[in-house]
Amino acid sequence: MWKPDRHNPKPLYEQIADHLEQRISYGEFPPGSLLPSERKLAEQLGVNRSTVILAFGELRSMGIIESRPGSGTRVSKFKWGAVPKHTPNWKRYAEGGSFLPNLPFLRRIREALQQNPALIDFASGELSADLAPIEEMTELMGTNPYPSYLGYGHPQGYMPLRQAVASYLDRYRGIQATESSILITSGSQQSLYLITQCLLSPGDAVAIEDPSYHYSLPMFQSAGLRLVRLPADEEGILPEEIRSLHKKHRIKMIFVNPNFQNPTGTLLSDDRRGALLEVASELGLPIVEDDPYSLTDYEGIPRSPLKSMDRVGSILHIGSFSKMAAAGLRVGWMVAPHSIVERLADARQQMDFGLSVIPQQVAARFLESPYFEPHLHRLRTQLRRKRDLLVEALQQELPDSVRFHVPQGGIHLWCRLVPSVSDAKLLEEAIKKGVVFVPGSVYGSDSGYVRFTFGRAKAEEIGPGIAKFAEALRGLTDSFPTVKKAK
Amino acid sequence: MWKPDRHNPKPLYEQIADHLEQRISYGEFPPGSLLPSERKLAEQLGVNRSTVILAFGELRSMGIIESRPGSGTRVSKFKWGAVPKHTPNWKRYAEGGSFLPNLPFLRRIREALQQNPALIDFASGELSADLAPIEEMTELMGTNPYPSYLGYGHPQGYMPLRQAVASYLDRYRGIQATESSILITSGSQQSLYLITQCLLSPGDAVAIEDPSYHYSLPMFQSAGLRLVRLPADEEGILPEEIRSLHKKHRIKMIFVNPNFQNPTGTLLSDDRRGALLEVASELGLPIVEDDPYSLTDYEGIPRSPLKSMDRVGSILHIGSFSKMAAAGLRVGWMVAPHSIVERLADARQQMDFGLSVIPQQVAARFLESPYFEPHLHRLRTQLRRKRDLLVEALQQELPDSVRFHVPQGGIHLWCRLVPSVSDAKLLEEAIKKGVVFVPGSVYGSDSGYVRFTFGRAKAEEIGPGIAKFAEALRGLTDSFPTVKKAK
Ligand SMILES: Cc1ncc(COP(=O)(O)O)c(C=O)c1O
Ligand SMILES: Cc1ncc(COP(=O)(O)O)c(C=O)c1O
Repeated sequence: MWKPDRHNPKPLYEQIADHLEQRISYGEFPPGSLLPSERKLAEQLGVNRSTVILAFGELRSMGIIESRPGSGTRVSKFKWGAVPKHTPNWKRYAEGGSFLPNLPFLRRIREALQQNPALIDFASGELSADLAPIEEMTELMGTNPYPSYLGYGHPQGYMPLRQAVASYLDRYRGIQATESSILITSGSQQSLYLITQCLLSPGDAVAIEDPSYHYSLPMFQSAGLRLVRLPADEEGILPEEIRSLHKKHRIKMIFVNPNFQNPTGTLLSDDRRGALLEVASELGLPIVEDDPYSLTDYEGIPRSPLKSMDRVGSILHIGSFSKMAAAGLRVGWMVAPHSIVERLADARQQMDFGLSVIPQQVAARFLESPYFEPHLHRLRTQLRRKRDLLVEALQQELPDSVRFHVPQGGIHLWCRLVPSVSDAKLLEEAIKKGVVFVPGSVYGSDSGYVRFTFGRAKAEEIGPGIAKFAEALRGLTDSFPTVKKAK
Repeated sequence: MWKPDRHNPKPLYEQIADHLEQRISYGEFPPGSLLPSERKLAEQLGVNRSTVILAFGELRSMGIIESRPGSGTRVSKFKWGAVPKHTPNWKRYAEGGSFLPNLPFLRRIREALQQNPALIDFASGELSADLAPIEEMTELMGTNPYPSYLGYGHPQGYMPLRQAVASYLDRYRGIQATESSILITSGSQQSLYLITQCLLSPGDAVAIEDPSYHYSLPMFQSAGLRLVRLPADEEGILPEEIRSLHKKHRIKMIFVNPNFQNPTGTLLSDDRRGALLEVASELGLPIVEDDPYSLTDYEGIPRSPLKSMDRVGSILHIGSFSKMAAAGLRVGWMVAPHSIVERLADARQQMDFGLSVIPQQVAARFLESPYFEPHLHRLRTQLRRKRDLLVEALQQELPDSVRFHVPQGGIHLWCRLVPSVSDAKLLEEAIKKGVVFVPGSVYGSDSGYVRFTFGRAKAEEIGPGIAKFAEALRGLTDSFPTVKKAK
């Protein structure tokens, strides 16, 4: 991102005006298009709003932009372009397509993090830099770096990675699979996307946990699916409810995230796993088992995935490197019946021609290396430590205003707020204080819940982050007593 | 892919039966699902069909599979699964979704290449291993290998790559762009996919060249678009036709591939570039300029892209590493007005959370390295040599039966066949002889055309490949005199 240069003798506002003029002349902001607001530009460029006002004035005087009250600042139609009235109506194009934009809260959080990287981040569902095995990967790639051929790859993914995933699944997840039943995808996200786009049709009903990561995905609505909520408690969903919901809604597929669920951190109990499989097979319903968190179990206890109990091939099992190593590898996988793998691999060719071989090679080597097991051990230890720090900070800062279950794995803690505050106001206030979280309503819950993700923040940020959050919450609740304890 | 072990004392058919039983028990082939045919399995496993027949017999006698005349071999419903009738109807799911499968010819070619990697490949639109700068990339990554953080990346792509692409566009394509107007995608393919999914709505008409790469993409039909053909000759499309076509069809967007077009190799003339821009701006129509081949110009002459003449921001310009370096990097880019970049970046988060940082880093370093320029030089020289070999072989083997223009860049040669033969028969016959090509009908042309891609085959394969093709063609045309010339 360009920023004005404070050592440049040219005044800041002139630098900004020149820069904007250049971007406009390149066609980035076509005639008639809206420029970012003064406030937003000021934030982006790290200057005072008054500087942006001066820069806009400069451009206005040159006839390059026009401002009208209430409708913002636009690129002038008369200055730019030979036949200016015929610039495509980009706004209409940007609103076209069946694909819905991200949820406003999530866009707001992304924007806030881009504007101020110093925010303490309890929102992003990823691991902090020190938890990712980057040194190990670098070393593994150093020895025998690259494939000898970099053409379009196999539609199902790089064969050595599929083999490595098959033996990983056998060893760590009790799942028997051959390479031909594995599809490599861009994280779990693309597996979910392919399922919603290629196996379901508009109008189909799908059952998802309440609350659930899947509510945060406009992808489901973009595919025209109807979402049916599966009630859940601290042991996960209640499988018996599926029968009556199916009668009412004709469910086509069940989506579950049984291990350390996003956002609640819940572990589906063994009894309910059995019951869920039974109900699903009785009704002939496929289950999508989205399982990115299982290996983060702090005790290292292996939980049987549904897929390991599946003998009729009714489970689509999805895994990912993102939460156990590095989201930036963008490597995930799906285990599915052959006809489904073939269908999805074929459609994916049309969308992106598959993943680059290079991260697939990194992933394969890492999975098969002696570094994998110690990495997992370290990851679990560190995540438990972060969870402890978070729990401690919440108890200290907000003893009477939060309620939560302590998660035994994963990276999320789900928190009910006792005082009633508006989600939106709390988020804005928290951003002002220097911390971000995700409001629970993003996951389909009523307001009054918060998801704190503790994988991303550094250990030493957790206490101060919660202190800032507590400040924000206190600021919004008059009646709410200030809590200050000596350490 | 598993293959039976010929050194194993266990008979091949028993090994195959065990292997299939295992895959069935893992749920890869659920109860009731269809197994591959005996012929196909025999090909895949590299055994005689009679061996597969024996293996099927074995499984049938165990009650694991059942064969019924005319409906193939299926996994038994009675042996597997406690409540077997309730396995999901995967066939129906696989047929669901709005996403159409690939064209049958392209699936057939892919299958043939997977079964017999020794086929001479005039079909795949990629570079041979010796043309990809793998050593250079390996070296560049060896010095300072990995990013210090591997989290979810910026929605528009890795910043250093966007900066490198911006300076590449300036230097090599005469396009002025800032990082914020660049979106990094999984090759050009994902740029095209995002445009069709997010900027256009079902029922919209789009104009594409006739013939065109875009006809080969069910992606357009999957998005519900109506395809309007733009007539073209050896100088590219006829821009004047757009006016009347627009009147008739209310065109929403124009797709062109102006440099060494896929499949025809045509270069859009300078006059027509100007005329196209004028018509489009007069009608207020956006143009998608899909430009993966321009840097392969054998003379190294820079052709002005449409985007470099664009002052009203009506061009979406797409580029890619695939045809100038390595398709397996899966790195492409789009330059577009800001509102469009933001819309597509946001939607892409839902689909796959973006590309891995690693190949983006490789691409950025390579673009900025001193290796880039010499690589381009070598690439052009080698591609021209391959083109010469192809032209020579066609003239020698089929002097009276093919007509073509000699391309001045790119990797494709478009060839009209004088004798009239069926596309499907010719392809099958060629596969039998050991060579593959793409029938022209895939690109929307009438039958009787062939696309020979000369980037993928090794130089020494080109002559023998065309000899095999000639044999296949001769075998199908009785009246057609056998040509044998002394070298
Ligand atoms: C339950 C669940 N599924 C899928 C994903 C997508 O992750 P990725 O595509 O990085 O594997 C996430 C990320 O937060 C998640 O929590
Ligand atoms: C004209 C054209 N556009 C786009 C593509 C897609 O290529 P990639 O996604 O590898 O950049 C191709 C590949 O053959 C092509 O020929």
